[in-house]
Amino acid sequence: MRTANKIAEDYIAVWNESDSGRRRKLMEATFIGGASYVDPLMRGGGIAEIDGLVGAVHARFPGLSFSLVGPADGFGEHVRFSWALGTPGAAPIVKGTDFVVCTDGRIASVVGFLDLVPDAA
Amino acid sequence: MRTANKIAEDYIAVWNESDSGRRRKLMEATFIGGASYVDPLMRGGGIAEIDGLVGAVHARFPGLSFSLVGPADGFGEHVRFSWALGTPGAAPIVKGTDFVVCTDGRIASVVGFLDLVPDAA
Repeated sequence: MRTANKIAEDYIAVWNESDSGRRRKLMEATFIGGASYVDPLMRGGGIAEIDGLVGAVHARFPGLSFSLVGPADGFGEHVRFSWALGTPGAAPIVKGTDFVVCTDGRIASVVGFLDLVPDAA
Repeated sequence: MRTANKIAEDYIAVWNESDSGRRRKLMEATFIGGASYVDPLMRGGGIAEIDGLVGAVHARFPGLSFSLVGPADGFGEHVRFSWALGTPGAAPIVKGTDFVVCTDGRIASVVGFLDLVPDAA
């Protein structure tokens, strides 16, 4: 079984992978096929849709990367962790906290909340 | 529809109600009948079991009360908020962050994480 930190690290690695072929492989190792994702801005069901959401974020924020903020915390099938999006070494432009439910060590659902959002352009 | 803050306030009111008859009424107004609750220490399914968990916390921590820490945050059917348990005016002895999914404005599931736990006695 993955630990809470491993789940969080693998999840962040998916979000940071800009190569669609490699990302799909990471996703298949990390998510169950019918995984769901929802945050205040977007939602998707299944690996293909979630992959599309990740690709859209890469298109919107090219060159930025996600990192974990602090340790992940988990019990049973439940994991929570906080993350930041930004240019390494600079203040993050988006921060959030995600809540994950796993099934057999893979991510079955993600509910994401935003802790810091950029001012509207 | 209840706002995120109203959901959080009603939920905290349930946890603070020591009278079992009044608490059951509050619970029926706040939770769906088949609601689920899980945190690192306990779990329950349905209002009667969750009511039992709340009663057990009152028995363990008599005279202490729960309060919200900061504003609740929500989107769609999802709500998160942080809370503290302690004697009013003193430093809290337990803190946590709960993630709630609602159905038609009532709580359908709660996943609770602990942010501060007392040292083992």
